[in-house]
Amino acid sequence: MADTAARSAVDLLTEARDLTDRILDQWAQRLRGEVAGRDGDALAYALATPGKRVRAALLLASYRAVGGESPAVAGVAAAVETVHTYSLVHDDLPAMDNDSLRRGRPTLHVVYGDGIAILAGDGLLTDAFALLAREPRPEPSAETDATLDARKLRVVRVVAHAAGSPGMVGGQAVDLQAAEARSTLDAEALDDMHRRKTGALIRASAVAGAVMGGAGEDAIAAIDEYARHLGLAFQIVDDMLDVSGASSELGKTAGKDAAAGKPTYPALHGLERSRRRADRCLTDAVAALEGAGLSGGRLAELADWVVNRTS
Amino acid sequence: MADTAARSAVDLLTEARDLTDRILDQWAQRLRGEVAGRDGDALAYALATPGKRVRAALLLASYRAVGGESPAVAGVAAAVETVHTYSLVHDDLPAMDNDSLRRGRPTLHVVYGDGIAILAGDGLLTDAFALLAREPRPEPSAETDATLDARKLRVVRVVAHAAGSPGMVGGQAVDLQAAEARSTLDAEALDDMHRRKTGALIRASAVAGAVMGGAGEDAIAAIDEYARHLGLAFQIVDDMLDVSGASSELGKTAGKDAAAGKPTYPALHGLERSRRRADRCLTDAVAALEGAGLSGGRLAELADWVVNRTS
Repeated sequence: MADTAARSAVDLLTEARDLTDRILDQWAQRLRGEVAGRDGDALAYALATPGKRVRAALLLASYRAVGGESPAVAGVAAAVETVHTYSLVHDDLPAMDNDSLRRGRPTLHVVYGDGIAILAGDGLLTDAFALLAREPRPEPSAETDATLDARKLRVVRVVAHAAGSPGMVGGQAVDLQAAEARSTLDAEALDDMHRRKTGALIRASAVAGAVMGGAGEDAIAAIDEYARHLGLAFQIVDDMLDVSGASSELGKTAGKDAAAGKPTYPALHGLERSRRRADRCLTDAVAALEGAGLSGGRLAELADWVVNRTS
Repeated sequence: MADTAARSAVDLLTEARDLTDRILDQWAQRLRGEVAGRDGDALAYALATPGKRVRAALLLASYRAVGGESPAVAGVAAAVETVHTYSLVHDDLPAMDNDSLRRGRPTLHVVYGDGIAILAGDGLLTDAFALLAREPRPEPSAETDATLDARKLRVVRVVAHAAGSPGMVGGQAVDLQAAEARSTLDAEALDDMHRRKTGALIRASAVAGAVMGGAGEDAIAAIDEYARHLGLAFQIVDDMLDVSGASSELGKTAGKDAAAGKPTYPALHGLERSRRRADRCLTDAVAALEGAGLSGGRLAELADWVVNRTS
């Protein structure tokens, strides 16, 4: 990959982070006024979790790839990142993965207790749907209200389906039950678990961008297919970095997956085969874009970044 | 209140329960196929929790009061009951109210463990928004798609706002923090806590029915005002029944609030003043309906039932 393309992906991630963080900051300020005591603080703490904002970047890139131009789409990106943030808060709970470090900071329940952490997660998830149903507000000169309503409603359905029992929640349940039973998932079950746990929301983010941008069904399907490969690549590389990375770079406890006997791609397939599989995902993702004439933009660069990142 | 009116309210509750339970049953069956192992079982267990379905009845009554006629609105009622069900699952967790009995059955975490109970609640909440964004599906002969989209989107906003940090989640956080600090809420703080914790979703249910029925803004505001008084009455009567009722009738541990030193209306105001306050709520609720010419239907009967119920 050319250096310019890599810089371009990093620029997109930076832009997505700036746009998203600004919305989440304002929101955290408002919540501190509206919500009593530690709950308001906990919500602000969660919303301030530093993140790569890959889902927001993906949403922006896919929105623009299909011709979307309004900066107001950042509200949708912030909502998707909020759904991701809630899932981290709940996954870290003692009754779940029991993790005390997340993105370089103590996890929410370590600071505020389990009860407030459960509630803060619930609040973030619910508030994200309020945001999805509200943002972006119609602009007089843009699409008619009816078109915008139809798109927003579809995005609510897409995100709810991806985040709910058939998707992210179901994937986490598979992971939890395997851990509790001290059983190791086989290759197929591992793919299925990640397809739900991480893959579903990544796909939903890309699809949401395309829907908000007014893409036709063929382009939406191509972007969905692209994001399916991207989501798998993201998880494989995450597992590989967990083996090779340091806690400070990862912002979470390195080597924790292996120590917990959790199934990972390197553990199941070895590092070399995992690397080859991630590379194949990249090829497949870009091929999906090419089929729809969408391979020239930031989406392909973002896929390259996901597969070749070092943190 | 005349016996016929009381029977009429009970008939409405029975109808709401039948309609809602049928949808939730079908859904539970599907989830058992889609979601692995204990998580699918836990979701089905939660969805089968027997309930009075007051929120569903309220939604149906307000939908019909403003002229709504489609039976498909039951999908919206089921979604609102699902949001309520998720909140019970999370509230019962050891890190929250730590309750082991709910509606006459062991609570979800007692049967399936804390991790699965957290996930099942997350799944129900998320899936409820998928349902809200999908149901009712447009009928060719009914309103145009655009009108229906606008109503659904507003209902998503109304329910998300009521259930989220500014509403139900925030109210539960106030309750939790008071319990943890072993401090007693004063009269004003108790009202505020219940206004959020129970009141907000009751109001949202009534408003959702009015919005789906195509009500004008004046009628929506009147129904919202009615439901505000109804929500408070509901909680006062709940607290009074907790003092006087038996566990078997209540389906939860009787006297538990008092035993836990939880603030209640009878504890703060005495039984007689609590009764008078509930009666005044009924008068105010009916007055709000009268102002909008809506006092002739089931809404007034339902308010009467809420205030004069014995379980």
